[in-house]
Amino acid sequence: MLGRVNHIAIAVPNLSAAVATYRDTLGAAVSQPQILPDHGVTVVFVELPNTKVELLEPYGEASPIAAFLEKNPSGGMHHICYEVADILAARDRLTSAGARVLGDGNPKTGAHGYPVLFLHPKDFNGVLLELEQVP
Amino acid sequence: MLGRVNHIAIAVPNLSAAVATYRDTLGAAVSQPQILPDHGVTVVFVELPNTKVELLEPYGEASPIAAFLEKNPSGGMHHICYEVADILAARDRLTSAGARVLGDGNPKTGAHGYPVLFLHPKDFNGVLLELEQVP
Repeated sequence: MLGRVNHIAIAVPNLSAAVATYRDTLGAAVSQPQILPDHGVTVVFVELPNTKVELLEPYGEASPIAAFLEKNPSGGMHHICYEVADILAARDRLTSAGARVLGDGNPKTGAHGYPVLFLHPKDFNGVLLELEQVP
Repeated sequence: MLGRVNHIAIAVPNLSAAVATYRDTLGAAVSQPQILPDHGVTVVFVELPNTKVELLEPYGEASPIAAFLEKNPSGGMHHICYEVADILAARDRLTSAGARVLGDGNPKTGAHGYPVLFLHPKDFNGVLLELEQVP
């Protein structure tokens, strides 16, 4: 069922510092920052040959990564996003197996414009998983 | 400088349970467990189309992931491994930029038999980074 690792998301307290680290110190290609008001984050993509790293900085009053950064003030790995071919079939398989889908259980539109779901970290070895249906 | 994401490592308290989650619930291909006594871990590779997830369980008395699991009893994302073409050149570039290499600063032989180095999480947004020189 699991496809490619679409991205690994890292929450950071200071996006411009994180961009400088990835671009200048580590020598990677990074995108321009994009504000995603609906997601409460500003995001920069680090483009690697086989996948992406998403650097996430809180945006706005109620960012979903604010609590994570309170617990991890230096930043840290926030989630892994796996691609799936059929997100509703994936959801049904997972919930049948007893795994918990966050929110109301229905896919939302993710940062790339495709349907996404998040899965409860307690059901996946302490790791927040995102599933994204890619065309 | 950064190449492919070689793997994403997840520390888990119970490897057989984690294998069941990835293989049966998430439907991914997983390897047989390998004990790596020199690294203090038992590892299973989750093979995805573009990269690998390494599930790590402590092995032996002084596992380097034991303290992490004490802090994160359910498990969690432990490190990201990036491939580099020349690990000594990478190290020199990073240390010139003020980043800290863990241990004595010299590459060790990693789980795949290639030279690896670990970088201090405080210098990389709270994320432990591994660099691996791949042929």
